[in-house]
Amino acid sequence: MIPLLVQLWLYTSVILNYGLVFCHVLQESLLSSASGYSNYRGILNWCVVMLVLCNARLFLENLIKYGILVDPIQVVSLFLKDPYNWPASCLIIVSNVFIMAALYTERRLSVGTISETTGTFLYLVNLTTLLFFPSATVLMLTSITPVGGAFALCVYTILFMKLYSYKDVNMWCREIRHTKARTLTRSHSCPSVAQSNGSAVHAHVSYPGNLTHRDIYYFVFAPTLCYELNFPRSPRIRKSFLLRRLFEMLFFIQLQIGLVQQWMVPTIQNSMKPFQDMDFSRMIERMLKLAVPNHLIWLIFFYWFFHSSMNFVAELMRFGDREFYQDWWNSETVTYFWSNWNIPVHKWCLRHFYKPLMGRGVNKWVAQTAIFLVSAFFHEYLVSVPLKMFRLWAFMGMMSQIPLAWFVGRFLRGNYGNAAVWISLIIGQPIAVLMYVHDFYVLHYVSQS
Amino acid sequence: MIPLLVQLWLYTSVILNYGLVFCHVLQESLLSSASGYSNYRGILNWCVVMLVLCNARLFLENLIKYGILVDPIQVVSLFLKDPYNWPASCLIIVSNVFIMAALYTERRLSVGTISETTGTFLYLVNLTTLLFFPSATVLMLTSITPVGGAFALCVYTILFMKLYSYKDVNMWCREIRHTKARTLTRSHSCPSVAQSNGSAVHAHVSYPGNLTHRDIYYFVFAPTLCYELNFPRSPRIRKSFLLRRLFEMLFFIQLQIGLVQQWMVPTIQNSMKPFQDMDFSRMIERMLKLAVPNHLIWLIFFYWFFHSSMNFVAELMRFGDREFYQDWWNSETVTYFWSNWNIPVHKWCLRHFYKPLMGRGVNKWVAQTAIFLVSAFFHEYLVSVPLKMFRLWAFMGMMSQIPLAWFVGRFLRGNYGNAAVWISLIIGQPIAVLMYVHDFYVLHYVSQS
Repeated sequence: MIPLLVQLWLYTSVILNYGLVFCHVLQESLLSSASGYSNYRGILNWCVVMLVLCNARLFLENLIKYGILVDPIQVVSLFLKDPYNWPASCLIIVSNVFIMAALYTERRLSVGTISETTGTFLYLVNLTTLLFFPSATVLMLTSITPVGGAFALCVYTILFMKLYSYKDVNMWCREIRHTKARTLTRSHSCPSVAQSNGSAVHAHVSYPGNLTHRDIYYFVFAPTLCYELNFPRSPRIRKSFLLRRLFEMLFFIQLQIGLVQQWMVPTIQNSMKPFQDMDFSRMIERMLKLAVPNHLIWLIFFYWFFHSSMNFVAELMRFGDREFYQDWWNSETVTYFWSNWNIPVHKWCLRHFYKPLMGRGVNKWVAQTAIFLVSAFFHEYLVSVPLKMFRLWAFMGMMSQIPLAWFVGRFLRGNYGNAAVWISLIIGQPIAVLMYVHDFYVLHYVSQS
Repeated sequence: MIPLLVQLWLYTSVILNYGLVFCHVLQESLLSSASGYSNYRGILNWCVVMLVLCNARLFLENLIKYGILVDPIQVVSLFLKDPYNWPASCLIIVSNVFIMAALYTERRLSVGTISETTGTFLYLVNLTTLLFFPSATVLMLTSITPVGGAFALCVYTILFMKLYSYKDVNMWCREIRHTKARTLTRSHSCPSVAQSNGSAVHAHVSYPGNLTHRDIYYFVFAPTLCYELNFPRSPRIRKSFLLRRLFEMLFFIQLQIGLVQQWMVPTIQNSMKPFQDMDFSRMIERMLKLAVPNHLIWLIFFYWFFHSSMNFVAELMRFGDREFYQDWWNSETVTYFWSNWNIPVHKWCLRHFYKPLMGRGVNKWVAQTAIFLVSAFFHEYLVSVPLKMFRLWAFMGMMSQIPLAWFVGRFLRGNYGNAAVWISLIIGQPIAVLMYVHDFYVLHYVSQS
């Protein structure tokens, strides 16, 4: 018995020593492509840390150089020149007129007191006025500030898209009612499509029943541009979710204002001289310097607007569809970016512009180009009118997306495509911003002095 | 037939219109935690783009401010003061004496002409001399530069670890031979463990057959610190792999030198004044400014040394085990980082220090602390001796890892732990660098003037 135990112990010792003697295995390094390794989760944290530290330094440098420039009261003066005169707010209140006009047109159309042609004509008048009235007001009123004007025009543009959708959907509903009526007279055995579609939804609204004040105002405030008779609703308001989004909204708006005042304004002011002197290397240096705060503010704006604010409003209204953006950060083509970063607008374009155009047999590329054209028009509209300065930089910026999209789609794949999209975002915006600011500066300050 | 077709067309139209009418779905936003979405692959590209652009700007700013400071010829002067006197190279050539001493000691031990105790004593003398001889030379020779000295000491430290491993493994082999001899005399039926372990390997070497010049020099040049009789070998030298690694080696070494000359040196020079005046906010600003280039250079160094260079050498020597690092970038604890970023050293510590200590019944925490102590000693040794200035900053930097490891392990989990590791890396290094540079500057320039 004992010799066996000793032998066993000796074997164990041999095996243990062998375990120590052999310590290398035939294998590839992780970073070699042959290893197939791809877990770089830590790199994300690294980026966050690096960005925080880099910006902490820039922040400190900025503070040492300029002192504290953040001034929340100053923001008010951007909206109001004269505290007794609130032109932008008045403009927004007036917008109710257009909402009412749309509702009453629809009511007339639903009972058939006016024809479809008259309806279309009334809408044409209503929607055209909706675009031209505020822009004319902003251009003529001297008491309106550029920021106030831009805000009012944004509200009107959103309203324009919403009412256009309202018109289309109600028209489709009338078409369905018409078709159903015709099929029902022809054959009594046809099953009701509406019934099978909406049976599970509580308090299901069908066509003429939706033409109420309550319904149209819910749509106007809802975070979507596409009208639907029965929006999906979330079961209840989650209070903690609501409070978190509210906190984010308040925090990020402050952060954006602070970053603009402390970081962008001094950088832009410093870049005016190189741009006037056309000192090329310094111009690029300034542009790259501006790119970082501009891009960060845009990212914060994205999160603030598309995640915090829209989710806040949606939660408050128990609006169920929270798809306000898709994973545009992974986009490998320019087209993917544009169709995923702003889902409300993309959905609207697809439903009320692209598909109807395609239905009329228009070529796919022509329809896409048309969307970019319309988008470019609205970008220009929202910038030029408030600044009272027509330069077409925003228009050209949007239109340049078409050759860019072609180039990226043609030559770049995967991560290279993604990097190209990011570069166009990071570099493209500050160029446009500097263009407008430069022209605005030359127009208002150089010509006066 | 025709009425049926018409009816079918009408149904299709109804369904198509329904598809248009319904366009919202009950769903969460991607960034809400409820969505469960986690694909942020694009963020990685964003980081790369942002880092490239930020650094492009810093590069341009740096160029405008300082002009071109990169000077490859200047690097040579770091190694050589006097072109006719190459002390560091001479030191490295002398190191062959120690290799030979180890080999001949082992040969005597294998045939039994000297006892194990004599062998251990000879090794003690050999290895102690190996550490003290170069440091004494570096401290006494005035013609040696700090960089040349550090390089020679690194070579000697690596050699120390290799020869220590050589001694251990050969000792284990003698133990195995001894045990096998004893078991074989006792029972002839025992199967050969060595046979079953190495049967598949071509030209398998067993114990005394490994004590050749060829074998020890292969080990000295192989990218590992752990000796093994039969290293796993890759089947062939992949030429394209070799060329890529060679190109990376040449490119990254140039990049590192360029970054040091163009970015670190001006930043360090500018930070001397705030550090002398003890201007606290500027000191932090300078430290953060230095953190970025220092960290980037460290990252490039990591890739250059552990991926490019080691893989190059391994490919050239057909050395199979390419695990020179693990995924330390994902490390959530300080301990994980230290045991994964430098696998050769970690493997050595585990095999020749930690496991033998544990085998003698030493507590796990005591053994870990001992490893950090030894590591701290070598860090200090490699910095203080070439600078001829004993300040203990490197020693304290390494020793501070123990409380840091405890803190991170105790309070931070997941991504927070990972971020803490990154912060300690990004911030810790430049503090130590600035400490040494500041003291070196005060010692050599302020005292002279």
